[in-house]
Amino acid sequence: MIYLDNNATTILDKEAGKAMMECFYEIYGNPNSIHPMGLEAHKAMEESREKIADLLKADPREIYFTSSATESINWALRSATSFRGKRKRVITSAIEHKAVLNTLKDLQNSEGIEVILVEPDRHGVVSAKEFLKHVNEDTYLVSLMAVNNVTGAIQPYKEIGRYLQGKDIFYHIDAVQTIGKLPFTFEDFCTFASFSAHKFHGPKGVGILYVKRGTSLRPLLTGGGQERGMRSSTQNVPGIVGTAVAMENAIKELNNKTVEKLASLRDHIVKAVYDLDGVVNTPLEHSIPNTLNISIPGIKGETLVNALASKGICIGTSSACSSRGDSGQYVLKAMKVKEHVGESAVRISMSRFTTETEVEDFIKTLREITMLLKF
Amino acid sequence: MIYLDNNATTILDKEAGKAMMECFYEIYGNPNSIHPMGLEAHKAMEESREKIADLLKADPREIYFTSSATESINWALRSATSFRGKRKRVITSAIEHKAVLNTLKDLQNSEGIEVILVEPDRHGVVSAKEFLKHVNEDTYLVSLMAVNNVTGAIQPYKEIGRYLQGKDIFYHIDAVQTIGKLPFTFEDFCTFASFSAHKFHGPKGVGILYVKRGTSLRPLLTGGGQERGMRSSTQNVPGIVGTAVAMENAIKELNNKTVEKLASLRDHIVKAVYDLDGVVNTPLEHSIPNTLNISIPGIKGETLVNALASKGICIGTSSACSSRGDSGQYVLKAMKVKEHVGESAVRISMSRFTTETEVEDFIKTLREITMLLKF
Repeated sequence: MIYLDNNATTILDKEAGKAMMECFYEIYGNPNSIHPMGLEAHKAMEESREKIADLLKADPREIYFTSSATESINWALRSATSFRGKRKRVITSAIEHKAVLNTLKDLQNSEGIEVILVEPDRHGVVSAKEFLKHVNEDTYLVSLMAVNNVTGAIQPYKEIGRYLQGKDIFYHIDAVQTIGKLPFTFEDFCTFASFSAHKFHGPKGVGILYVKRGTSLRPLLTGGGQERGMRSSTQNVPGIVGTAVAMENAIKELNNKTVEKLASLRDHIVKAVYDLDGVVNTPLEHSIPNTLNISIPGIKGETLVNALASKGICIGTSSACSSRGDSGQYVLKAMKVKEHVGESAVRISMSRFTTETEVEDFIKTLREITMLLKF
Repeated sequence: MIYLDNNATTILDKEAGKAMMECFYEIYGNPNSIHPMGLEAHKAMEESREKIADLLKADPREIYFTSSATESINWALRSATSFRGKRKRVITSAIEHKAVLNTLKDLQNSEGIEVILVEPDRHGVVSAKEFLKHVNEDTYLVSLMAVNNVTGAIQPYKEIGRYLQGKDIFYHIDAVQTIGKLPFTFEDFCTFASFSAHKFHGPKGVGILYVKRGTSLRPLLTGGGQERGMRSSTQNVPGIVGTAVAMENAIKELNNKTVEKLASLRDHIVKAVYDLDGVVNTPLEHSIPNTLNISIPGIKGETLVNALASKGICIGTSSACSSRGDSGQYVLKAMKVKEHVGESAVRISMSRFTTETEVEDFIKTLREITMLLKF
């Protein structure tokens, strides 16, 4: 099996798995208990929080553990909305993840907020200038993804952050596709940032919400008062410990030429795609190096995914494909990609564990399938 | 280390851990992807859902996976409140878990609902008759725990369920302390029930919400539309698979004389406690067999917990102990336990893995410490 769908989820880091097993069977206490087993679990959890804070250049008190990026996003957007006063406007992009778009839609229905969806350019990149035109006195929240999951395009989250700095506006960054793919640290400009462990070889079921010190925050989950009263629920210590290990390794490896390796593998695939008269939907010069969104016109995305699957190769579809699948068709539509190109779009997303042989095998199979399906 | 705090959390079931490792490294796909790795993960998840539904005598479509019982409880209570119409009254007991009490308090503040807290008798058991007196036309929600976590006392959740059957009232059962401790299945009488995997040797970070078919339900987390549109977020497949294995083993073992074993071990401890002029706060004839809440008057609960901890024995405190520790002091107060007895309360909670030798060692150490601290 060749797995090239790492923007959807990743295999667990081996060291992370080992650390988790230790938590499962050695320090399995409730971190809120005052006996030794509880204290050890608490220590492991707080050391993980410090490690993560350190990696992101944040304060440990700014790191909250959740169950997923979706929960982090819901929490940030809903909390901000509860502190909006009389303000109504939220500015975001049309190519955000559904966790952002559908949560804002829900708030639009229930709270009557106004949601401005800024369209990207044809490369899938939002213009900071265009985006910031919409900021007015009625604006209480801005939410932007650092990197788009469907195309890999990097968004102007820094420029927008610099502009918003010092203004009384909540600024949430969906940073899910950053870790291990892009150097990402806080430069004091955002109020919230969301992360998902299973996107960087951490376990499923763990998310992080960064909350800048001093930011008004309302809990989403109430109860026993864990996470300094802000996120009740017994903390998932094994998951948290595994997340810290996975994040450390992902960021360490990013510095160790992973970017160059991934970029070179991607160039390889790009060349093959052009040879097959394919279209590249990812802005190569302005994207994370592991991601490549392509179309082979004449072959529907889902058809190509299924044909590759039958040969043991897993890639992502970007086409509308029933209720399942993390469809990214709306992203391509927002980029004004021609309909027949959009329908053919698929996403290849590598990880630092992807090998040259795997990519060569993928290219060979892609060629064979294209010949078969197209001619 | 002797671990006797299994109502706080449990060690992971070995078979569950093995199944999780397989998910981490063999079928690690996103269950919403349409390629083989996704389909395999989806299959493992749905098989787990079916297994759990089967164990609880529910329909698989009634089982939703969450990140914790706290999330399940927040979801059930908040969803019910959003469908209350003009009704305001919620009836619950004064000895519920903080996840219920603090969520209702939050809804009281934000939505203006009326919360009736029914007091238990001096055995820590709520009277069904007393409880049901409060049901009126204004009542939209009833929430009751099946078993109290602090004392182990079994509550009249069945009688109340039978009374409410067919009425237009949401009925939520906090079933967290049932699995592996008490035969628990749905008899079609409740609308919601919450479970936590880490209380029955499953992993931390996984909860279940049972929602009876046909019940109005509003999502707590919005986004990608997972869990049939009702709970967005990539599902934690390894955690879900581990939960199903752990639940199956816990329920299977419950039938295999675990109850008799635990009851006999508990009788052993009770005898020793009486020998030390201690007080038993658990209603022995009306409780789950793994739990024993006791007081050694003259020794504060926290002091006893710490003294035992220094000898490598972990038990739970029921006393107020700063913001940490799952304090159950309010439960003893509601039972009108005398103040000096309440302050001395500690909780011993065994699991099916607790051995006779461990219990004997515990009793021996308890005797030594009591002599030392008391005289």
